[in-house]
Amino acid sequence: MTTTKTAQAFGAQTPESSLEQLSISRREVTAHDVEINILYCGVCHSDLHTARGEWPGSLYPCVPGHEIVGKVTAVGPHVKKFSIGDTVAVGCMVDSCRECASCKEGLEQYCEVGMVGTYNGPDKFLSGHTFGGYSESVVVDENYVLTVPSNLDLAGAAPLLCAGITTYSPLKHWNVGPGKTVGIAGIGGLGHMGVKLAKAMGAHVVVLTTSASKIEDAKRLGADEVIISTDPEQMKKYAGKLDFMLDCISATHDINAYLGLLKRDGSLALVGAPEHPIPVAAFSLIMGRKSFSGSAIGSIGETQEMLDFCGKHNILSDIELINIQDINTAYERLLKGDVKYRFVIDMASLKSN
Amino acid sequence: MTTTKTAQAFGAQTPESSLEQLSISRREVTAHDVEINILYCGVCHSDLHTARGEWPGSLYPCVPGHEIVGKVTAVGPHVKKFSIGDTVAVGCMVDSCRECASCKEGLEQYCEVGMVGTYNGPDKFLSGHTFGGYSESVVVDENYVLTVPSNLDLAGAAPLLCAGITTYSPLKHWNVGPGKTVGIAGIGGLGHMGVKLAKAMGAHVVVLTTSASKIEDAKRLGADEVIISTDPEQMKKYAGKLDFMLDCISATHDINAYLGLLKRDGSLALVGAPEHPIPVAAFSLIMGRKSFSGSAIGSIGETQEMLDFCGKHNILSDIELINIQDINTAYERLLKGDVKYRFVIDMASLKSN
Repeated sequence: MTTTKTAQAFGAQTPESSLEQLSISRREVTAHDVEINILYCGVCHSDLHTARGEWPGSLYPCVPGHEIVGKVTAVGPHVKKFSIGDTVAVGCMVDSCRECASCKEGLEQYCEVGMVGTYNGPDKFLSGHTFGGYSESVVVDENYVLTVPSNLDLAGAAPLLCAGITTYSPLKHWNVGPGKTVGIAGIGGLGHMGVKLAKAMGAHVVVLTTSASKIEDAKRLGADEVIISTDPEQMKKYAGKLDFMLDCISATHDINAYLGLLKRDGSLALVGAPEHPIPVAAFSLIMGRKSFSGSAIGSIGETQEMLDFCGKHNILSDIELINIQDINTAYERLLKGDVKYRFVIDMASLKSN
Repeated sequence: MTTTKTAQAFGAQTPESSLEQLSISRREVTAHDVEINILYCGVCHSDLHTARGEWPGSLYPCVPGHEIVGKVTAVGPHVKKFSIGDTVAVGCMVDSCRECASCKEGLEQYCEVGMVGTYNGPDKFLSGHTFGGYSESVVVDENYVLTVPSNLDLAGAAPLLCAGITTYSPLKHWNVGPGKTVGIAGIGGLGHMGVKLAKAMGAHVVVLTTSASKIEDAKRLGADEVIISTDPEQMKKYAGKLDFMLDCISATHDINAYLGLLKRDGSLALVGAPEHPIPVAAFSLIMGRKSFSGSAIGSIGETQEMLDFCGKHNILSDIELINIQDINTAYERLLKGDVKYRFVIDMASLKSN
């Protein structure tokens, strides 16, 4: 029987309720576990969708949060990679089957049995479901724990665990680098990381935004060029110019107009998840042998690679630090796109409550 | 000034009119031209769309036909590859810019200026527009003329020029071969070629059809397995099993159900062209990093490679030979899917008229 201890957290008791302070159980470390005192946790739009039951299968109480940075406070007897005091991180998953073809290839995010989400996943230790990073602590198998490079600001690093890896992985998979022209559509939590990462990879970065007010900021983030996607003239000028496009837009949008910007054999990878199915015209793909693709977060190995890359290039998310008590207001602002570009919770605020 | 001669043909004078016999002008061979006495011409659904003005930009009179097989009757003074009496073929294009990146890479079908269609394209010699293979002869630059392997039945070979290359090219591009499981969706003019070609390439071929009546025929064509796509149990059984799927369905269909059959990193390539935009759910692509792609015919070089491959494996289209006078009836039957699997016009019927 796994022994537990109580931890303070913030979560929703029902889809309709605000997030409030509550107590959850965390297991004591087992053989391969690392216990982490959470210092910062980023606020991802998935947190909001899950807490409010907007996606199928939300379980309650729901404690969101999968952009976790903290310090190791305990390790199980068989833990090899981490020691007490280490600065570590946890992203979107805390386990996977480890036996399917995807897991064996080191692509746990595509685990064929289903990866175990950091929250709302099946908790094999305590039964019930997993609780995320809006909490004072978390206990995770060391194989799903990452090391944070020592030079990175910890609050700014937290969003790398979802927004960072979700954009890094497709940029790498589709070979973005020197000599390539890459479009980044949508400048929010994901897109602003996409711009920084694609630029650091050496690509020529073209930002697509509907908002003229974001032009200067896109350039500050690293964009070489900015297109206002609602201007047909600007769009026409870039027809057939992009090797790859990372689509970070979660609102409904005309994907055919974006596919038209790709070169022959170009791919557009979706990482935002619009709610409604996206209409694709056959000729948008057939003419130029183009691909409309998707990508989900990244593997554990690639997440570490991304963190190391961010360490090397000193890449952080642009954040607004909040107290946990402000999370409901933050959610409302998130819905309006009123954040540049990621809320991060200072978890010290939970303990001081 | 280019001199011309009159040729008999069959075509439509308006979008509303039936196809009737008419006279067209063909140029006398210029330096690099090959004149071809047309023996057989396949009937592609694109012919019907264009003749009836169902796609934008149809020009009249419209003489369709881009699955052409015939004998060389004259060659220009600089022609190197062909001699009088050679058995040759012409597919969907008769020219391209030859200077853009795609042309220089030998991918003329994706010519950035626009390839010149065998019919309904701009005729740079005579101004006006090009006339296709529903005609006694055609004159084509030797660089856009193919050699037909001597062992192939000429009537059965005609559809290779569009249906054959349209399926061969994506099967090659997405690396279909031994050890790969490939789905072919839709068993018509394109799909039946897809099955034969994928099987000859060494893949394990799974046919998807809505029609139980096609099971036996699909197996005869080379399918290792057949799934009735309207049966959720059968579809569920194949979830995540296909490396690649070639989608030859031109009717509206639920692409998300088909994407669900792909393995991680799998691609579904559309070669049929449904009229209405196809709704794609974001998670159909994101979960498993899948791609929804398209492919258009193939290059001249690849068309020759395909013909040689068909020669080696003695692959032909299953055809129903018709006289040109039956073309309007054939179009009506085509609309009902009442052909196994391609009409081919015996062009001797035009001359005997």
